[in-house]
Amino acid sequence: MKETLYTIGEMAKLANVSIKALRYYDKIDLFKPAHVDSETNYRYYKDSQLSQLDLIKSLKYIGTPLEEVKKAQEMNPWDLLNFITEQEKLIQMKLDNLMKVQQNIETVKKRMERHLHTPSLGEVFLWEEEETTIIEMAASNIKPNDLTNASYSMLKKAVEPISGFLNTGYGAIFSYEPYIHIEDIVYSKIFAPVLNNQMLSMVPAGMKVETIHAGTYVCIVDAYHPEKYIHNYQKLMEFIETNQLTVISDVYEIFGAMHYSANNQEEFIIEVKVRVA
Amino acid sequence: MKETLYTIGEMAKLANVSIKALRYYDKIDLFKPAHVDSETNYRYYKDSQLSQLDLIKSLKYIGTPLEEVKKAQEMNPWDLLNFITEQEKLIQMKLDNLMKVQQNIETVKKRMERHLHTPSLGEVFLWEEEETTIIEMAASNIKPNDLTNASYSMLKKAVEPISGFLNTGYGAIFSYEPYIHIEDIVYSKIFAPVLNNQMLSMVPAGMKVETIHAGTYVCIVDAYHPEKYIHNYQKLMEFIETNQLTVISDVYEIFGAMHYSANNQEEFIIEVKVRVA
Repeated sequence: MKETLYTIGEMAKLANVSIKALRYYDKIDLFKPAHVDSETNYRYYKDSQLSQLDLIKSLKYIGTPLEEVKKAQEMNPWDLLNFITEQEKLIQMKLDNLMKVQQNIETVKKRMERHLHTPSLGEVFLWEEEETTIIEMAASNIKPNDLTNASYSMLKKAVEPISGFLNTGYGAIFSYEPYIHIEDIVYSKIFAPVLNNQMLSMVPAGMKVETIHAGTYVCIVDAYHPEKYIHNYQKLMEFIETNQLTVISDVYEIFGAMHYSANNQEEFIIEVKVRVA
Repeated sequence: MKETLYTIGEMAKLANVSIKALRYYDKIDLFKPAHVDSETNYRYYKDSQLSQLDLIKSLKYIGTPLEEVKKAQEMNPWDLLNFITEQEKLIQMKLDNLMKVQQNIETVKKRMERHLHTPSLGEVFLWEEEETTIIEMAASNIKPNDLTNASYSMLKKAVEPISGFLNTGYGAIFSYEPYIHIEDIVYSKIFAPVLNNQMLSMVPAGMKVETIHAGTYVCIVDAYHPEKYIHNYQKLMEFIETNQLTVISDVYEIFGAMHYSANNQEEFIIEVKVRVA
């Protein structure tokens, strides 16, 4: 093949890369001009250098970092084949990860939709719930008015590598009793939901994987307010008594932020629910 | 819920993010402390702000850029659900793209392996080839010694959006004749292989999608050298005559770089092959 020298502009056009990229590749010693004019400092490239750019572009296409491309440039064809096989494994990992993200988005969306479609606030209703996997830990004498976001810090740390999403369905558990005052309620457990059943064996000591069973639940949803809380709980009890339902679970309290804006951050939605036979 | 103020260090620990990230979020107005001490400039965060960080982390997990996260913070739950649905589409696009990359890597690897397993250089051999899709364009009176990497510039521009990979199997076509001198050979076409059959309708004017058919080929592979070229071609002809084979295609010449290193860039491998009945 003939050797012709090209200016940086010609080279950029021939290789379909920007002049800026060529300058950058020169600067980081990835791809240097064959000749630099000592007077003008103009860069000149040889025709055969175009195939070097082919490799750079090919590896960039498959997501190889430029530092790794440098190594690949010095490889013989056999090593290059092995190198590409390694890059393929990284792509498989990215694919697996994205598919997990996609799966988790699906579950989060379903839960968000479920919450957006609950009947009006402050009204008792019956709802068929799907099974939810949760990670729970003992609540050390925490009452509704003591619960903070910080209470969930350890649970969130445990859930983050499993679910990624952190913005739905945190809650607490207490036994179903005829409470008169909000101060009478003491949580036995607090919990965080997980979006998939992978990696559940990695739950830290002091935490346990549990299930909120599928079934019929008596529910009430309302904006959180210390005074409304016990009132709503009593509405739930009345509904259960009036309809002669048999309670077969503890009470699950699940809360969520109504807004994530810095301006309305104090508003929370609380859902209280109990499973009935 | 109780409101407690946390220092930046406490907040970082509770939310499982770095202090550096919290400072950065403050700087870019994504997530600002509830209170900054006017004397010490220390940042203080409210407990309820932890749920804002949940949203930030959740959206970061699904790959949302921070600028978009800012918009999401101001959304009501319905808009947030729509927003997440849009993000899901972007993930699907990333997945589709990665799967295409993976497919293309598979094809490139197969072709690289095929070339690494050819018999010794300068020897004629028979090979069962799989079908290859190529994009070809007319070669305007180009002879083997005139062919440059630049000759492929337009073809590569056409192939890049289809295949991504640019480093395998470029070639030229000429008719099978009893050539005596390398100067007698004139290419009719030059071509670039594509790795998949997507987007082939987008080939620019002056180019054509063609197929190098599957079948038995008589091949010779050698390092490129102007004098060896015609000698090897004549070896190919001799083999065909000696074995009384019937040639049923043009001659395909395919070349590849032996190295991509700046030091050995002049070496090319040339494969010359023709299909026989």
